[in-house]
Amino acid sequence: MPKAPKTLDELFHDTLKDIYFAEKKILATLPKMAKAAQSEDLKSAFNDHRDQTEGHVERLDRIFAMIEKKAQGKTCPAIIGITDEGAEIISEYKGSPALDAGLLAAAQAVEHYEISRYGTLRTWAEELGLDEAASLLQETLDEEAETDKALTEIAKSAINLQAEAA
Amino acid sequence: MPKAPKTLDELFHDTLKDIYFAEKKILATLPKMAKAAQSEDLKSAFNDHRDQTEGHVERLDRIFAMIEKKAQGKTCPAIIGITDEGAEIISEYKGSPALDAGLLAAAQAVEHYEISRYGTLRTWAEELGLDEAASLLQETLDEEAETDKALTEIAKSAINLQAEAA
Repeated sequence: MPKAPKTLDELFHDTLKDIYFAEKKILATLPKMAKAAQSEDLKSAFNDHRDQTEGHVERLDRIFAMIEKKAQGKTCPAIIGITDEGAEIISEYKGSPALDAGLLAAAQAVEHYEISRYGTLRTWAEELGLDEAASLLQETLDEEAETDKALTEIAKSAINLQAEAA
Repeated sequence: MPKAPKTLDELFHDTLKDIYFAEKKILATLPKMAKAAQSEDLKSAFNDHRDQTEGHVERLDRIFAMIEKKAQGKTCPAIIGITDEGAEIISEYKGSPALDAGLLAAAQAVEHYEISRYGTLRTWAEELGLDEAASLLQETLDEEAETDKALTEIAKSAINLQAEAA
């Protein structure tokens, strides 16, 4: 017997589980990136973003409660692939003047994945009439966009430093 | 004996191979997404973007020639993960009114990965004095950003249609 077709609220729930898994993976990854980073600015940025990410997980917990579902992740192959590339940078560029540039690129790939997911979830929440969830998702979306912007600024100075050292 | 530390030009080359692999993977994926899409608008958007993607690969070919390297890809776990999630949507949401919304979200995750990579590569090309490469990368970056914006517009109307049908 064919399954009943899935609806937008199920897609919202599935995608919420996807980003929940992703945020937990990012929480585990940021300390490794902070440890690997050469510049103090970048170390601080990764540590600050880790604290911020804990807040993002808490907001997701609240949204799961709003839709009366258990807060749980669902394996997200995208974030696994993106963070694997970051791990590859750490191993291949250890001791290289280009390491921080590579870490920044990896972190920005993570931010863009999150920006895309939170933008989608916010739009769906609005459509589903989940106004409070939409506001929480917008808050996280704004913070991810700010982080991406801050990383771009650090990237410019990091590259300049590496160019001066070369 | 430890390897010599890698420099920014090697990071640029490695990342060029990463996005080259990603673009080829996207070329192979877009026809599947066009076939799966329910709305004609979305089918057209995927087909148009496929044609545009061929132009992106050609630009990358030219940049490889500029840095006197062979045009070749390097397995990019990020795009594999991102496109796997798209394939999962096609299989799980077949026949569902939410299918197009899911396909759009998957496509926007792809666009954001590309936006992050092309932004990074453009900045590095500028820093490395590869001005012509930087211009080509900026052209592709602009097109990816336009595609993302167009997908957002389609997402809004697709969601409205699905809501009306519910």
